[in-house]
Amino acid sequence: MTNRNAPQLRVYGDLLSGNCYKIALLLSHLDTPYEWVHIDILTGASHTPAFLARNPIGKIPVLELPDGRNLFESNAILNFLADGTALLPSDPWLRALVLQWQFFEQYSHEPYIATARYIAKYLGLPESRRAEYQAKQTGGHAALGVMETQLSRHDFFVGERFTIADISLYAYTQVADEGGFSLDGYPAIRRWLARVAALPRHMPMPAD
Amino acid sequence: MTNRNAPQLRVYGDLLSGNCYKIALLLSHLDTPYEWVHIDILTGASHTPAFLARNPIGKIPVLELPDGRNLFESNAILNFLADGTALLPSDPWLRALVLQWQFFEQYSHEPYIATARYIAKYLGLPESRRAEYQAKQTGGHAALGVMETQLSRHDFFVGERFTIADISLYAYTQVADEGGFSLDGYPAIRRWLARVAALPRHMPMPAD
Repeated sequence: MTNRNAPQLRVYGDLLSGNCYKIALLLSHLDTPYEWVHIDILTGASHTPAFLARNPIGKIPVLELPDGRNLFESNAILNFLADGTALLPSDPWLRALVLQWQFFEQYSHEPYIATARYIAKYLGLPESRRAEYQAKQTGGHAALGVMETQLSRHDFFVGERFTIADISLYAYTQVADEGGFSLDGYPAIRRWLARVAALPRHMPMPAD
Repeated sequence: MTNRNAPQLRVYGDLLSGNCYKIALLLSHLDTPYEWVHIDILTGASHTPAFLARNPIGKIPVLELPDGRNLFESNAILNFLADGTALLPSDPWLRALVLQWQFFEQYSHEPYIATARYIAKYLGLPESRRAEYQAKQTGGHAALGVMETQLSRHDFFVGERFTIADISLYAYTQVADEGGFSLDGYPAIRRWLARVAALPRHMPMPAD
């Protein structure tokens, strides 16, 4: 969504990347206009000097403010954009729980489920990375097991309502099958995925 | 530090783990009393049913409040404990930058530097994990390079003052040599390590 009359947010990313899709999903819920700049990591677009000046680790997404400041790390961007809205509680304990689930996502979920998906979907599961792909299964199912337990007791991860903790975990869980993770054994996760997708202003990840 | 007269915070962890040491270092700066409960991950103490009820992913540290609520993920704990203190800015942009560096730490630093240290120091660098240990070098030096650039321009990571972003990155960087990472090529990091260690109320990681 672009409004040329107002200075606006710019997001550098790839909508098929869960980490980038998180930002688009939040901005859809917030009904905030933004400009999306597509970055193709497979052609090195995240490692040009211009991009590395925005994010020295060369990863997407990056948020650019109208005044030119840049912020990287998807979950830091979510916290910044959602601050003061219904999608990030103001209560300190609930905010801590949001962060708890977001750090869980980045350490115990994304490196297994997103990386397996990347190897399969982006790289075409080359023989040279098949062992690594297989090795991701145990950690990915451990993360899904933790999510299943939480979601069998609660409709959402924090405070019994939809927050950016759900957005963080939704992004790659909804495409876990593309990394070889069947959700057949996780009925609470499947109900939660449907609950999130049915919310007003939900934006699905685009097809390829 | 234990004050038996007041309900107090309890931390479950191992002070030789950087993720746990972060919490002790922050509590030292805040001069907050707490009880430390040692958890030996090598003997399975983080996977007992009692511990998994505190943290279903079976990792340390865990913070327990006087009323029995539990919080896991080291950086979520830091944000909760530092909220409202000088170690976590109140400005939304600076808070976002703190989170940016903390997510960088958990995704791009800890999995290389802390894991290499774990394989070498805790497991004794067994032959079966030597290839994995070697493979951590590239990512670890990439993270150190990003830190070096930032610290060559700034005394601390965020807002020109000591914050929990520094605590998060200090914990494993100060023992990077134990993971096989020499800091000889990182003069700005070495000056920053000395700057942090010289702060009032600094608590070094204990010797073995």
